[in-house]
This record gives sequence, structure tokens and C-alpha cells, in this order.
Amino acid sequence: MDIPINLHRMTGELDQLATFSETKPPGVTRIIFTPGDLRAREFLKGKFREAGLDVREDAVGNTFARWHGAEPDLPAIGTGSHADAIPNSGRFDGTVGVLGGLEAIRALQRAGYRPRKPIELLLFTSEEPTRFGLGCLGSRLLAGVLAPEHAAMLCDSGGSTLEEVRSAAGFYGQLDEVKLPQAYYEAFIELHIEQGPTLEREGTALGIVTDIAAPASMRIIIEGEGGHAGAVLMPQRKDALTAAAELILSVETAAMSTGVIDTVATTGICEVFPGAVNSVPSRVKLELDVRDVEGQRRNVVLGLIQQASETIAKKRGVSVRSELLNADPPASCAPFIIEALVQSCAEQACTQKQMISRAYHDSLFMARIAPVGMLFIPCRGGVSHRPDEYASPENIADGTRVLAQTLARLAA
Amino acid sequence: MDIPINLHRMTGELDQLATFSETKPPGVTRIIFTPGDLRAREFLKGKFREAGLDVREDAVGNTFARWHGAEPDLPAIGTGSHADAIPNSGRFDGTVGVLGGLEAIRALQRAGYRPRKPIELLLFTSEEPTRFGLGCLGSRLLAGVLAPEHAAMLCDSGGSTLEEVRSAAGFYGQLDEVKLPQAYYEAFIELHIEQGPTLEREGTALGIVTDIAAPASMRIIIEGEGGHAGAVLMPQRKDALTAAAELILSVETAAMSTGVIDTVATTGICEVFPGAVNSVPSRVKLELDVRDVEGQRRNVVLGLIQQASETIAKKRGVSVRSELLNADPPASCAPFIIEALVQSCAEQACTQKQMISRAYHDSLFMARIAPVGMLFIPCRGGVSHRPDEYASPENIADGTRVLAQTLARLAA
Repeated sequence: MDIPINLHRMTGELDQLATFSETKPPGVTRIIFTPGDLRAREFLKGKFREAGLDVREDAVGNTFARWHGAEPDLPAIGTGSHADAIPNSGRFDGTVGVLGGLEAIRALQRAGYRPRKPIELLLFTSEEPTRFGLGCLGSRLLAGVLAPEHAAMLCDSGGSTLEEVRSAAGFYGQLDEVKLPQAYYEAFIELHIEQGPTLEREGTALGIVTDIAAPASMRIIIEGEGGHAGAVLMPQRKDALTAAAELILSVETAAMSTGVIDTVATTGICEVFPGAVNSVPSRVKLELDVRDVEGQRRNVVLGLIQQASETIAKKRGVSVRSELLNADPPASCAPFIIEALVQSCAEQACTQKQMISRAYHDSLFMARIAPVGMLFIPCRGGVSHRPDEYASPENIADGTRVLAQTLARLAA
Repeated sequence: MDIPINLHRMTGELDQLATFSETKPPGVTRIIFTPGDLRAREFLKGKFREAGLDVREDAVGNTFARWHGAEPDLPAIGTGSHADAIPNSGRFDGTVGVLGGLEAIRALQRAGYRPRKPIELLLFTSEEPTRFGLGCLGSRLLAGVLAPEHAAMLCDSGGSTLEEVRSAAGFYGQLDEVKLPQAYYEAFIELHIEQGPTLEREGTALGIVTDIAAPASMRIIIEGEGGHAGAVLMPQRKDALTAAAELILSVETAAMSTGVIDTVATTGICEVFPGAVNSVPSRVKLELDVRDVEGQRRNVVLGLIQQASETIAKKRGVSVRSELLNADPPASCAPFIIEALVQSCAEQACTQKQMISRAYHDSLFMARIAPVGMLFIPCRGGVSHRPDEYASPENIADGTRVLAQTLARLAA
């Protein structure tokens, strides 16, 4: 099947989408329910409607754009990704799956294809954990793995709840109506950049994901004793930041201790209170992220970090309070979707490789309610979550074409 | 001499001053040229004028309130302190010297005393380094140890220069006119809380400072490589925060290595970029503070920290850029002022003890252009730079009475 991708139009749309940002180019910052996020949503909904899709939003802002098939009551074939971006990150993470999904649908329309089953493009709310400390808010609620009453009370650093910010943003519906019924999707396929270096290094056009690694994140609050940096003598100190420094190094050591390359642990947030050069830090907030392709091994690392925090607290006379923000099981992709992707790659003359996703994605949660598949596009140097994140137009075109072919195959 | 302190009025004024704050009580936050600082200045100037003092401000906001003596052209006897406060700190640091100085003058007026020499109350601008990374901005400029053109270009974290924020606050004068002439003050005495535990522990009413410890501060920028917390494997990382953690511990080790209780070092600021839980930190800014009563020994510690940062940079493949923000020599108080304070304590029946100031103060810089003295009031638990900072009304009254007596003695 010849699938006429309009790459010029699609890269133009990626460029336009990158302008909805709270930081200057090339860095992109687009955080759930900030003005940049809300403007990006309107821009995307406009594009979805232009393509003749039927658009609806749920109570948390997940946005569905449906191409009604010849038999509109059948379960849909879904595709999509997210458009939010962590502070000063790149323009391809997530967005390639949204605009790629849209272009795949438009290309099928151009090719004269008419689906039997509905094809639905899905824009997820807040895949990134930036604002509420928990990633994949939208897909967790869709899959029913996050209780709506718990979601409503999630707090951002300014003390506002998700309930407050979503209604301020105009999303008033009931959160408990977000969960999708079983068999809503017959299959769900997410197109995404690899966020790792393998495909580029090996010169492979596309990656077909077999498994998605299990993520966990933890918040640790260290409370010591503040005081004047000149007057409190060293032996009297209960410095929250020196305790935090030991813990940050323990997080690294815990990840290395498994001896397995798949284990990673990162302290990404370290906030110091009061945060003055001449004041002994009294409180530090750390947030850290631990992942592995094996949930069991990941949990061992979490245990080591917990242990280290208790040892440090005792040694330094500070108190440590830790909270597991999430610890999700890994997911496997559906063999029939992997098979369909392999065939589409062959038909579209794209090399491919089966691989694990070390990053998590909304598909991790969609896997709870639907068979899922993921298609990876190479990204330069494996770089992601940085302003210099880059995927070439050619690679994006390959991914979009194979996605379109696969949607067509499954929706037939 | 009987000196009738109106303690009720003075503690009321301390309470009022504490309300000019950007954080809720009991914490006080008053940063140079923010609305809270500007309102506090107006409040204080009103009080100075009520006492019949002649008020002038210089180009950086140092505020002078003069009680003209019988021979107004003689060099003045000065007293005063600062009113700015680091984030979420207390209500006595600095303010006791400003309102205590004012009450000392009012008490002398009530007692019918008329000075021969002028007595001048001085409110310093930005003793705390919070906004521009450099403490004692006002007194450095008064003493001529900070070049006006360098001061003008100091930048806050929002990228605004001192030049910009001072004019936005209405201070338009020439910075190079701030420097005071030599012999402007015949003596300068600062009343201040101890910010250490000694006086309270020993049950001594007042401390008479003999020497002020030498402060230094340093900014260190660590640049590593960011990336996705799931995708960048541990051996490939150049994590700026794990490097920073090692350095924070090295700062502590360097201070301990002198084996002398007078050496202290503190990392008070640690800012992580981009600061997302699922992103490997690419950049960290540290600011640290090193002090000792011996300038030489303090410099050895600075050298050890510098060395450690280079070792860590090499080991972890990150780059480290350090900048010495200040490294000032210690100061000694003038023997004739120490002697006058000792006599006043005896006359006012206050116990006293001669001691070192581990914290620095505007007097450290005033010592470059005038003979200085400092009088310490006990503070509970030695606690300062915290919301629970506390000095008792009785101790404040003692300090104010002895200050008044000493001003009277010197201005006679």
C-alpha cells in the first residue's frame, strides 16, 4: 500500500507545537494546565477537526479524535501519545506520536483508505510527572489504576490540587467517568522516539517494543536543624543538605549494586530550605526515580535506598520521611500487534529491531485495558528531555508510514 | 546615669517591623528592594523622624538619621544595623540594632541628655547576601571596599542588576557618592543578637566583641549532561547532582579538617537544573560559606574545596566553574570602644563577657573607615536565621541601656 506522508506539513506542525512553551527555544516547557499546555491543546484539537475527526475531551483533559469506520460500533484501533514537556526539554518526546498519529490518519485518507473499525487518535494528559509528582495521570485514570478520589487530591508544589487546577482550566466533568470500558480498544499503538541510543547506533530505522520497564518514584523529605552558617559550630550541626548529599550518592550506589545494566536510579529533584548561602539547610526535598525491566529487582533497589536513608538519619541526627509516589509493574506488548508492526515494516521497506523500552509511556497503563504495541523512532545520540533532542524528518516519516500501514491492517 | 528605656514601645515596634515580610509569621523574609523591604524602610524612617532625627538616604538605600549635637560639625558617634532578613528567618537579627539604636537615642532625649557631638543612627542596606550573593552591600560601599561599578552590575537570580532594581525602587543617586569620608564617624557601635549560644549558656547579660571572624563565600556551577532518567544507563551518566553531592560532603570535610572549632563551612544553596524527577540533572549551582577567626586558615579551607571540586570534575566527567564571591579579612574592635562598653556595663549593672563574633556584620566593613565596637544580646539556644529566633525583652533592654550610656559617653 502506498502511503503518501506529507512530511513538510507534519514537521511544520511539530515546529508550531514547540512554540507553545514557557521557556525560550530550543528548550520546550509545557506543563499540565499551564497556559502553554492549554494553547497547545486548542492548536491540536483544531488540527484534529481539520482532518474531519470527531473530537471529545474527558474530565482530566484526555482528548479523543475519532475517525468513524464503516462499522462505528466496533472496538476502535487506537493510537496516540502525549504533548506535555518537562522543564526545558525537547520537541519530539510525545509530540511525534500525536502529530505522527494524525498524519498517519491523513495519509490513509489521502490514499483513499476507508476503515471498517473506528480509528481513534488519543492525546494523553500529563504523561510527565512534573506538576503532580506522578506520571501518566491521564492513562492511569483511563486504565482505572489510579483512584479518581486520589487523583483529585494530588497536590502541586504551590499547594493546588488537581481538582482545583483542572476546573480552573475548564475541565469540570466527573473524574470517575474517565475510566474506559474494557474492549474499548481492540488494539492501541504508540509511536514515540526511542529516548536511547540503540537504533541510531545500529542504523536501524525503527524499534518494535516487546516490553516496557517498570518505573517507580519516591519523595524523601529530610528534616534537620537550621541556623546561622557562621554561628552553629560543625559538631552541633544537623544539616539537612549534607544528609541529602549522602543519600543522593546512596541512590546511585543502589542502582549500580544490581550489576545489571537495566537498573537505573536518578535523583532529579533536590530542593533546599531555606536556601540562603549563610544559613544551615533545615529541610531538603528529594525526588528520585528508579527503573528496571524486572519489577522485582527494581523493588530491591528501592529497599536499599530506604535502608540507606534510615542509616543516614540515625548517623546525622536528622529525620527522614519517604513516600513511594508510584511503583508500577512492567508491561508486555501484544504479540499480534508486534507481528503486525513487523509485517508493516517489511512492506514499507524499513529495517526494524525488537527492543525493550526503558522509559515508561502511557502504553504501560493502556496495557491494563487493551493489547498494546509501541513503535520507536531513532533519536540523535539517544538524547531526550533536553533542548537538543532531535529526530530526523526521514525517520519520523518512516515511523508514521509504518504506523499508518499497521492501523489500516488492524482496522480492516 | 538613669536611662529610661520604653521597652513596651520598642518591642511593639519590633513586632510591627516583623509584619513587613513575604512569608507568614513567625518566619520573616525581607529581601533588599522587595515590597516588604521598601515598606519596612518607610516605617523606620517615620519612626526616626518622630524622634526628631534628620533623615537622609544614599544611592543604595543606606539610611542615616542624625541627632545634631551642640557642635554639629564634629565627627559623629554612629550606631545602627540592618533590617533585611533571609528567607523565613527571625525578627531580631539586625532589627534589634536599628530599633535599639533608636530607643537608645529616645531614652537619652527623655533623660534630658544633649550630645556635644552628633549621634547618628544608620540603617544599612542588604547585610544579607540573599539577593545579590554578596553580604553587606551597603557597608561595603560606605567603606569603599566594593567598587561602585562592580556593585552596579551584581545580578540577582532573575538576571536583574543592582543598578536596575535600585532605580526601580526609587534610588537614583550616584553609587560612587556612597563612600563615606574618613573620620566621618569618630566611633561606630553595633548592637546585635549573639547568634550563638554562649551568653545564654553562661547567664551573661551582654557580650562585648573583640574580633569579627573572616567570612568568605563561593559559587560553584557544575555542568554535566542531562537526559532521560529511564534511558541513560548508569555508566554513561555525567550527572551534575551526584557530583554536587560529593562536593557538598567535601565542603563539610574541609571544614572539619582544620581540627579547630572556629572553622565552619556550609553549602546553603543547591539549585538543580532542569529539576524534574525523571530527568538526569544537567547543571547544579551551589553557593557555600566558609568562616574562621583566622583569615589564613579560612583560605586553606577554600583551597581544599577548590581542589576537591577539580578531583570530582575529573572523576565524573563534569565541568566545574567556581567563583569566589567574597573573602574578607577579619576585623578587630577598637580598644577605646571596648573600654567604654565595659564601663557602661558596670554602671548599668550588667554582667558582660568579651567574645569573638563568628557571624559577620556591617561592622566588619565599618572597621575599615572608623573605630568600631559591637555589643551582643543573648539569643535563645543560640538560634538565628530561623523563625524561632528569640531575644528576651529584658536582655534587649539591657543592651539598649548600655548602648545609650556608651553613645552618651562618647558623644560628650
